[in-house]
Amino acid sequence: MSACKDEDPRINRIKTSIRVVPNFPKPGIMFQDITTLLLDPQTFKDTVDLFVERYKGKNISVVAGIEARGFIFGPPIALAIGAKFVPLRKPKKLPGEVISEDYTLEYGRDCLQMHVGAVETGERALVVDDLVATGGTLCAAINLLKRAGAHVVECACVIELPDLKGRERLKGKPLYVLVESH
Amino acid sequence: MSACKDEDPRINRIKTSIRVVPNFPKPGIMFQDITTLLLDPQTFKDTVDLFVERYKGKNISVVAGIEARGFIFGPPIALAIGAKFVPLRKPKKLPGEVISEDYTLEYGRDCLQMHVGAVETGERALVVDDLVATGGTLCAAINLLKRAGAHVVECACVIELPDLKGRERLKGKPLYVLVESH
Repeated sequence: MSACKDEDPRINRIKTSIRVVPNFPKPGIMFQDITTLLLDPQTFKDTVDLFVERYKGKNISVVAGIEARGFIFGPPIALAIGAKFVPLRKPKKLPGEVISEDYTLEYGRDCLQMHVGAVETGERALVVDDLVATGGTLCAAINLLKRAGAHVVECACVIELPDLKGRERLKGKPLYVLVESH
Repeated sequence: MSACKDEDPRINRIKTSIRVVPNFPKPGIMFQDITTLLLDPQTFKDTVDLFVERYKGKNISVVAGIEARGFIFGPPIALAIGAKFVPLRKPKKLPGEVISEDYTLEYGRDCLQMHVGAVETGERALVVDDLVATGGTLCAAINLLKRAGAHVVECACVIELPDLKGRERLKGKPLYVLVESH
């Protein structure tokens, strides 16, 4: 984290509000549980505010949130900066015509889909999720938005697991996180 | 809908922004797609504002959102009224200790879970989802919150399918919706 962020007292409250659950969903995985962060209204507000302060006035018209925890943080950011919210979902969830991206993740394979027509060519997009691990999901999200003609300005996550080097997989797109967990 | 809501021009914009996709996820189902509503930032804001205007000052300390589309509308409402956000999720998604409720839905069976400790006895809760069909999911959510000792003040949904009579299954809890679809 940058010195600036470390000095913000909100960051420490966010960090301590995240619960680590060992061996979920598999043995050896230290699951970063953001549901405990959401239980304190001020800490949840601080989390959203930190993103909004960064992205307000940056001419972002699309906030793309990754199912399901990206749906919790993405919409309040979209509403605050006046952007549309585009859900990126698992297969068979979106009812309209979709484009798909397969990807590998920390424990298995998956696929992410976006509605055709949700994003217009030239739009500036922010990708939001709760956590970046290996970066596979964010990479799939970036690919979907690029294929729709959008410019991905940045990926924004609450937590980064830097040991998994997800940042290196993001096709040169910048990643902004509030908290690192080792 | 009440006369008052019919007179609010925001309601009509919300109604026309919802796309109906026939035969999803099964033949015969007319799927109410709120992703098109989210594409217009003002309409999305109006939707959240209508709920916030109703629940602000009502001493609600818990907004419980149902996976996955309840995660899109619940968090902005929670932030605006200063409540915690509690995700109600499908099995194997929440990493901590959970309580579970099985239920039947429009097309099949499912189960909803809530983290133990997310809600304290006596808290006043609002349940949020995008749509009420048969009411099975909302009923499971009400049961989870009651078992945790919370008082469910109301269920709030964007869309109601009144022909499916979901309102009758809500154990006497009031239901507030913005739009009806027949």
